Amino acid sequence: MDKFFQVAIEEAKRGLHEGGIPIGSTLVVDGKLRSQGHNQRVQKGSAILHAEMHCLEEAGRLTPREYRNSVLYTTLSPCDMCSGTALLYKIPKIVIGENQTFQGPEAYLRSRGVELVFLDDAECKALMDEFIAAHPQLWNEDIGEV
Amino acid sequence: MDKFFQVAIEEAKRGLHEGGIPIGSTLVVDGKLRSQGHNQRVQKGSAILHAEMHCLEEAGRLTPREYRNSVLYTTLSPCDMCSGTALLYKIPKIVIGENQTFQGPEAYLRSRGVELVFLDDAECKALMDEFIAAHPQLWNEDIGEV
Repeated sequence: MDKFFQVAIEEAKRGLHEGGIPIGSTLVVDGKLRSQGHNQRVQKGSAILHAEMHCLEEAGRLTPREYRNSVLYTTLSPCDMCSGTALLYKIPKIVIGENQTFQGPEAYLRSRGVELVFLDDAECKALMDEFIAAHPQLWNEDIGEV
Repeated sequence: MDKFFQVAIEEAKRGLHEGGIPIGSTLVVDGKLRSQGHNQRVQKGSAILHAEMHCLEEAGRLTPREYRNSVLYTTLSPCDMCSGTALLYKIPKIVIGENQTFQGPEAYLRSRGVELVFLDDAECKALMDEFIAAHPQLWNEDIGEV
């Protein structure tokens, strides 16, 4: 398995062990792991620190050039917020663990020139299936659904 | 002037006095001011705390119902990230100080059902004009431009 995706899964599991939503992310710049993160809704009471956002924040202030030479990994299809952030910084490629649990604006990302790679990873899906069955309201809060 | 927009301008000025990018934001829920924020790129070394994101983070974890009864105020047209966040939480209305300095994906927001109100505010524009003239590289970093 892709080593950067493996770290994203480890981040998702770290989140789960902290009592949070099990979604993880990594950012790879110029072929090297730059940062990693996981959803912080429960842990930090955060409305904006989805896994991808936490990962990008952990990366710090990068140059436009660095973002344009990066790949964002995430265990779950990125939502409107995280997709928009990838567009802001012109991140050219997103590797997505699974998109069965949730689908972000994938067609829109493609229309704006972002390459999407789908791994259809069973472990990512199992993590979310189990979590959502136990905490449906928390999950709905995270994606803005009633 | 709309009192909630006035607070957003005060936030922009607060940012400027801190040495940061002068963009401010407020969130109004059920007709009451819920939170306020300003761009934190310089102050916190943040890649994701644009004014709107800081404001939404300061609001804390809201319910889907609260977001759907809210108005987001911002002194500058929201970028892809901040627009995506409004879409995630189904914020129905955004009041925008000006969109001459920068234009986010306004047509896309409208196509997704978001009401946009433009104030064409001279003070917001003057704040940005002066800031960008003094710090062009910092501004480009904030919007992912080389």
